[in-house]
Amino acid sequence: MPGAVVDLNADLGEGFGSWTCGDDEGLLAVITSANVACGCHAGDPRIMRRVCDLAVERGVAIGAQVSYRDLAGFGRRFMDVAPAELTDDVLYQLGALDGFARVAGDRVRYVKPHGALYNTIVRHEAQAAAVVDAVLRYDAALPVLGLPGSAFLRLAEAAGLVTVVEAFTDRAYTAAGELVSRGEPGAVLHDAAAIAERAVRMAVSAEVLAIDGSTVAVPARSLCVHGDTPGAVEVARAVRAALEAADVALQPFTAR
Amino acid sequence: MPGAVVDLNADLGEGFGSWTCGDDEGLLAVITSANVACGCHAGDPRIMRRVCDLAVERGVAIGAQVSYRDLAGFGRRFMDVAPAELTDDVLYQLGALDGFARVAGDRVRYVKPHGALYNTIVRHEAQAAAVVDAVLRYDAALPVLGLPGSAFLRLAEAAGLVTVVEAFTDRAYTAAGELVSRGEPGAVLHDAAAIAERAVRMAVSAEVLAIDGSTVAVPARSLCVHGDTPGAVEVARAVRAALEAADVALQPFTAR
Amino acid sequence: MPGAVVDLNADLGEGFGSWTCGDDEGLLAVITSANVACGCHAGDPRIMRRVCDLAVERGVAIGAQVSYRDLAGFGRRFMDVAPAELTDDVLYQLGALDGFARVAGDRVRYVKPHGALYNTIVRHEAQAAAVVDAVLRYDAALPVLGLPGSAFLRLAEAAGLVTVVEAFTDRAYTAAGELVSRGEPGAVLHDAAAIAERAVRMAVSAEVLAIDGSTVAVPARSLCVHGDTPGAVEVARAVRAALEAADVALQPFTAR
Amino acid sequence: MPGAVVDLNADLGEGFGSWTCGDDEGLLAVITSANVACGCHAGDPRIMRRVCDLAVERGVAIGAQVSYRDLAGFGRRFMDVAPAELTDDVLYQLGALDGFARVAGDRVRYVKPHGALYNTIVRHEAQAAAVVDAVLRYDAALPVLGLPGSAFLRLAEAAGLVTVVEAFTDRAYTAAGELVSRGEPGAVLHDAAAIAERAVRMAVSAEVLAIDGSTVAVPARSLCVHGDTPGAVEVARAVRAALEAADVALQPFTAR
Repeated sequence: MPGAVVDLNADLGEGFGSWTCGDDEGLLAVITSANVACGCHAGDPRIMRRVCDLAVERGVAIGAQVSYRDLAGFGRRFMDVAPAELTDDVLYQLGALDGFARVAGDRVRYVKPHGALYNTIVRHEAQAAAVVDAVLRYDAALPVLGLPGSAFLRLAEAAGLVTVVEAFTDRAYTAAGELVSRGEPGAVLHDAAAIAERAVRMAVSAEVLAIDGSTVAVPARSLCVHGDTPGAVEVARAVRAALEAADVALQPFTAR
Repeated sequence: MPGAVVDLNADLGEGFGSWTCGDDEGLLAVITSANVACGCHAGDPRIMRRVCDLAVERGVAIGAQVSYRDLAGFGRRFMDVAPAELTDDVLYQLGALDGFARVAGDRVRYVKPHGALYNTIVRHEAQAAAVVDAVLRYDAALPVLGLPGSAFLRLAEAAGLVTVVEAFTDRAYTAAGELVSRGEPGAVLHDAAAIAERAVRMAVSAEVLAIDGSTVAVPARSLCVHGDTPGAVEVARAVRAALEAADVALQPFTAR
Repeated sequence: MPGAVVDLNADLGEGFGSWTCGDDEGLLAVITSANVACGCHAGDPRIMRRVCDLAVERGVAIGAQVSYRDLAGFGRRFMDVAPAELTDDVLYQLGALDGFARVAGDRVRYVKPHGALYNTIVRHEAQAAAVVDAVLRYDAALPVLGLPGSAFLRLAEAAGLVTVVEAFTDRAYTAAGELVSRGEPGAVLHDAAAIAERAVRMAVSAEVLAIDGSTVAVPARSLCVHGDTPGAVEVARAVRAALEAADVALQPFTAR
Repeated sequence: MPGAVVDLNADLGEGFGSWTCGDDEGLLAVITSANVACGCHAGDPRIMRRVCDLAVERGVAIGAQVSYRDLAGFGRRFMDVAPAELTDDVLYQLGALDGFARVAGDRVRYVKPHGALYNTIVRHEAQAAAVVDAVLRYDAALPVLGLPGSAFLRLAEAAGLVTVVEAFTDRAYTAAGELVSRGEPGAVLHDAAAIAERAVRMAVSAEVLAIDGSTVAVPARSLCVHGDTPGAVEVARAVRAALEAADVALQPFTAR
């Protein structure tokens, strides 16, 4: 009987100019897929090049972490961008990152929207369709990574794209399998051991203990670990160690 | 005996957001190579996409018009960018434009630096080498378009890149074959008929009448026409008509 | 019996870098209040300085045309900016423009939000309150210019600010006195004579012919003429000439 | 006999959006003058407002840390900006910061150029004159803070501005009283005790031990401590404690 297989993804390359964000190098030693910022909410050519070089060196898959064009807001604010413009913004970011990925000897392997765009296209059909359209036009073989049940993944699947669902190791879930809003108490977990235990259960049994104590199913081909909080690398290491101890194989979902 | 062959290049896609610059569509009906702005001095995803789509439709070769990162200054101000950073800035622009070119069904066919970067790397060895390095890493088969005698073309050639020289149809030349500085009287020509006549002589005889009345050699596989001045399209049309009347074949230098 | 008095306002200084937008100098010879872009949706230090200098020279009142921070979208896209951040964005723009106004010998005399922000705070209470808060903190004596019936003017008035209502000379109105949406047929008028005639009726009788042929009241201490369309200056001149012919006095609403 | 008096200045507010830089709050408890970034190389409206509010609360003088417009390069790259444009860029920054300073209950008290601009106008007469021109136009009573012997201070003085010289507590000096270039060994000191001892000698005797062991005069009405390095606050605290132990009075040079 083959064991469980899971991917570990995290947001990387989210500094800008002289400003840093998180420990890219530390995370690249732990994760299997890197969501690399493309210069619209964070990231600049130097950072993109360095992260791509390191990712290829370590066998980590490079994904395009596409975003609204909002450096001042880190892509965390909804913008009412016309769908056609959003498609072009995503294409710009995809192309730019792919250039660095190719220079590093690989290429962009998947797409994961960032921040407010990620959250918006859970329900906003027109913007979700615009992101799908960009991926289709760029390379219809590129998988998209997103939230189970989102409009984005539904439209992507309908358009023939490969869709990959993710779960969040450090976020609380409702009994209905949805994320507890960040504003609510207990929404974000901080204890590395608890997070690691949840990760194992997600990977092995595709379920998690909901905030009300019930058990809820969470499909997850990929587990998202956060990179920009203090101690992020330690938590990610704990998650990886626990998965390995449970005989869960860690590999990019893009691996053949 | 085969007749003369020449390429006509112009800067395109130099609007930004709601601001326009020049008549991209008009020029695309006249030129054979489009130097497309990549978002650092001008150009945005919408404009890049539209210009690439139209260029491919009309058989115009797409070139990356790479620049310093200076939207407020339109890339016209020297910036003392570290060479390694300049290489990455160029790679970013190349990748982003190539994405749109590929979506349109073609790809970036050559590289031509813009504005202050173009002028700087006539002599600035370190920045010239940085641009060469970017092209080499991105695609060593990409030709570079530049000024005869420039450090840029010299280093590009030494690195094994294909180099293509251009002449300026509306600029006065010194007896030594150099451009008369823009500040000096008579440096820029405005009369369409005179410009067209010079273009034919450049294409057929590889020479031009210098500002002192002497005849000077100007090698030119490509002729640059300007796109951002009033009447630019009319001048470009006059140049093209005169070349065709003189049996000069117009085709991209990238054509095989 | 004193005659009618009205102010003519228009958006100015909406170029950026090498890109131009409208005929600032032409409009400054016609209007009495200039809504000057402050660098967030358009405008840069050079343009702001020049417009302020010319405005003071011609006795035109300088208003801060504050906006979302969205140069690529010209401030025309709703952004879900947190109210506290919006307050600070408005303060930044107010201070920057006031610097140029003071260097020119005057100061910022009023505030008028731009584009998507203008439209949003017709109903969005939290963002409307954020703009009001910025004006209050900067200078509680600064009037705000806006749409009659908007949340913005209601909250501004409640906070003790001077509020000034404007009408749009080239926009169709419903029988209820609201603007016909831009998407609908007949929403925007283009005929200079018709626009001028409406302007006179607005100034003299505070009413306008609605799109259904009925007469509707439109309070208007200021009339907005558009600056960024072709022929904008000609229309503005026609409006001014018609107002003067009807003995309507033209002066900034900020005049004492 | 009155004791020595000195000012302690540091760069503050140099984060941007979600990115942080240094410990603004920690430094504000130590320094007497804050060089506040104005949004061109770093700083944004939220940061500017917060730093101004805290500075006023703690009696720290607010200075405008004006820069080239280069967020991606943190203002550390020379830009060949035309003098007239540089004047306007400086005015923009001055006005924007002054807005926040006034909202906080004070106003901008002095001007100190940042990074590459600071270094450039040590010798670049045209750019130095452009900065002087901006200060003169904005408020001829505003002091400028700079390097002894610089073109900037010389031109500022000739124009009638108040000039204030600063010394660097953690930088090595040559026997000629110039800064040792950062690239050279020993150019930057890191030991808090050594830095504090030098600060006292600068404040009390206006001299410092040069890198060759000789004693050299360094006039310094203000001492610059760095804010963006790890341990910066600890070093600043050590400097302040040593100055206080030596009975040196610490107060803004702008105090009357």
